[in-house]
Amino acid sequence: MKLNIAILPGDGIGPEIVEQAMKSVKAIAQKFNHELEYQYGLTGAAAIDQVGDPYPAETHDLCMKSDAVLFGAIGDPKFDNNPKAPVRPEQGLLAMRKKLGLYANIRPVETFESLLHKSPLRRELVEGADFVCIRELTGGMYFGEKGRKDNGNTAFDTCIYTREEVERILKLGYEFAAKRNKKLTVVDKANVLESSRLWREVAQEMAPNYPDIKTEYMFVDNAAMQIIQWPKNFDVMVTENMFGDILTDEASVITGSLGLLPSASVGIHTSVFEPIHGSYPQAAGKDIANPIATILSAAMMFEYAFDLKEEGKLIRDAVAASMEEGFVTEDIAEGPAYKTSQVGDWIAHWIEK
Amino acid sequence: MKLNIAILPGDGIGPEIVEQAMKSVKAIAQKFNHELEYQYGLTGAAAIDQVGDPYPAETHDLCMKSDAVLFGAIGDPKFDNNPKAPVRPEQGLLAMRKKLGLYANIRPVETFESLLHKSPLRRELVEGADFVCIRELTGGMYFGEKGRKDNGNTAFDTCIYTREEVERILKLGYEFAAKRNKKLTVVDKANVLESSRLWREVAQEMAPNYPDIKTEYMFVDNAAMQIIQWPKNFDVMVTENMFGDILTDEASVITGSLGLLPSASVGIHTSVFEPIHGSYPQAAGKDIANPIATILSAAMMFEYAFDLKEEGKLIRDAVAASMEEGFVTEDIAEGPAYKTSQVGDWIAHWIEK
Ligand SMILES: CC(C)[C@H](C(=O)O)[C@@H](O)C(=O)O
Ligand SMILES: CC(C)[C@H](C(=O)O)[C@@H](O)C(=O)O
Repeated sequence: MKLNIAILPGDGIGPEIVEQAMKSVKAIAQKFNHELEYQYGLTGAAAIDQVGDPYPAETHDLCMKSDAVLFGAIGDPKFDNNPKAPVRPEQGLLAMRKKLGLYANIRPVETFESLLHKSPLRRELVEGADFVCIRELTGGMYFGEKGRKDNGNTAFDTCIYTREEVERILKLGYEFAAKRNKKLTVVDKANVLESSRLWREVAQEMAPNYPDIKTEYMFVDNAAMQIIQWPKNFDVMVTENMFGDILTDEASVITGSLGLLPSASVGIHTSVFEPIHGSYPQAAGKDIANPIATILSAAMMFEYAFDLKEEGKLIRDAVAASMEEGFVTEDIAEGPAYKTSQVGDWIAHWIEK
Repeated sequence: MKLNIAILPGDGIGPEIVEQAMKSVKAIAQKFNHELEYQYGLTGAAAIDQVGDPYPAETHDLCMKSDAVLFGAIGDPKFDNNPKAPVRPEQGLLAMRKKLGLYANIRPVETFESLLHKSPLRRELVEGADFVCIRELTGGMYFGEKGRKDNGNTAFDTCIYTREEVERILKLGYEFAAKRNKKLTVVDKANVLESSRLWREVAQEMAPNYPDIKTEYMFVDNAAMQIIQWPKNFDVMVTENMFGDILTDEASVITGSLGLLPSASVGIHTSVFEPIHGSYPQAAGKDIANPIATILSAAMMFEYAFDLKEEGKLIRDAVAASMEEGFVTEDIAEGPAYKTSQVGDWIAHWIEK
């Protein structure tokens, strides 16, 4: 099979972790006889520095003609505390999401036995937790009208959703629930927001079409509590963009394995695979960052973008082996720690064998 | 001193827990020779059922002429799954907040040694956590323009803030930080939202006026993680209405003492004191609900609304004594459990002695 991939390393540790993932991707392509075609694109602060645009047109063209995008991370602290900066790296991320139609961000929340002691939660609460967060990614306050009035002294953002947008993401939620434990939790704030009431209406209309699946409604403030208190009660959670931003990050830390979690953003034109963690600028260039989340993102890429389950599984097995044998970076090492590049090599070699 | 209080018991367990708090309020008034004047008002589902309005004009008038309002809880499940219900209890709460100008909701997050084992977090992370969440309560998406377009198929909400609203709440944040550990964490989403950029601009303008206080900026998704991972790093956190709804609920469960936490909503016309927990309809009328959060809300009332520190302290001491002696309700009892009314009596008698 021909695998046509765009690679966007981005900022901070992005380039080095993406490099490790590519080692595994190449090993898989060789082993399974896939024809691998890939090209690098600029994005984020790196792209601002070089061409003045965090998501340049060439990068977009590259993504559009690719079957999948492997993404590192973006963000640079030099932009963070300047609310008036005219161009920010995050704008690149948002432009990419919108232009590629990446309407759903999918984040599996899984625990790793060997990392449970790193969880901030008590072991018995989180052990065995296994759910998927689906966040709507191209609507809501992120993309609604925003601006200033009264000489800049009043600022507003608009959270806006259409029935089609809500249906599309709920459908995906039901599909995931159907393949899993048959429970979909729709998170909203229907007791306050009109947009949430639309979400709930649509969900209530759709629910009867999925008689095998239990549809549960939960207010976002309650969800923020339940994720910590009873994470094992979730199977598939679906929510709008801003709530999803908050809840998926909250959910990602309860396992103690934030540095290991991958994500997929499913789109109309292509799909993007990236680690959940950020660009971690303090570690950039030091060869200490943990590449596992990016390598697992590559596994998701094989599974979701190319429907190559066996290939994805082999990457997962290789990652599991590296963790079992303690061949991991300092952030999760119990014994001696290895470098980013060493871990990347080890996992790729394991695949080759 | 004359204490002029409005009492709004509300729904579910509201009436019974407010009754317990009033026992302590009366005991305090007697002991310290304050002239207590109080009157009951309807609110929530109870008010919808009786007069068709969750915040009737008479209740508003009552609050306006009171120096403080003691509030139980509102909410009734019969309204929750009907997004099209024309009147909902929550509207009463929102109307009250807006009409009384309750611009700041203040929630201390404190741990109780004897309840730490109920925390979902590992003890060492949360033990000693002590911070205050200040949530803006009359702005943002809660009160911005909302509605439908396209025959109801598009729904929108507007998050809107003026400079004055932001200044007012940040000022309160700085005042709290000045009396505490001199750190203010301003939580926003300035990398995406225009309203957040206004918040951050205003904070950056105000910060130099408080040279003793460290102003820290944090994105809301990061805050959702930090609250679980490093709760002891916070001193005073301030944020907008919707983010505050989510984060304060998240913060309230990390201590294991959700049922014990009080809150104050500071306003232009009066202030409202209420437990953080909800109306807990399953327990209503069973005399099993924990009245401590409401009793501690009464303590906050003495301290904040009447500046009667000694009175507030005596209530706190009484609550601490009930917990030390294990004279508590079933939700937190280690040994035998007592009824709501018994705990209320015990604490009031302790004050009288
Ligand atoms: C960087 C930021 C714009 C982005 C978001 O808010 O979506 C990030 O937090 C994320 O979750 O991918
Ligand atoms: C009941 C609801 C409208 C309310 C809110 O969202 O403000 C509640 O969650 C709260 O935090 O007091």
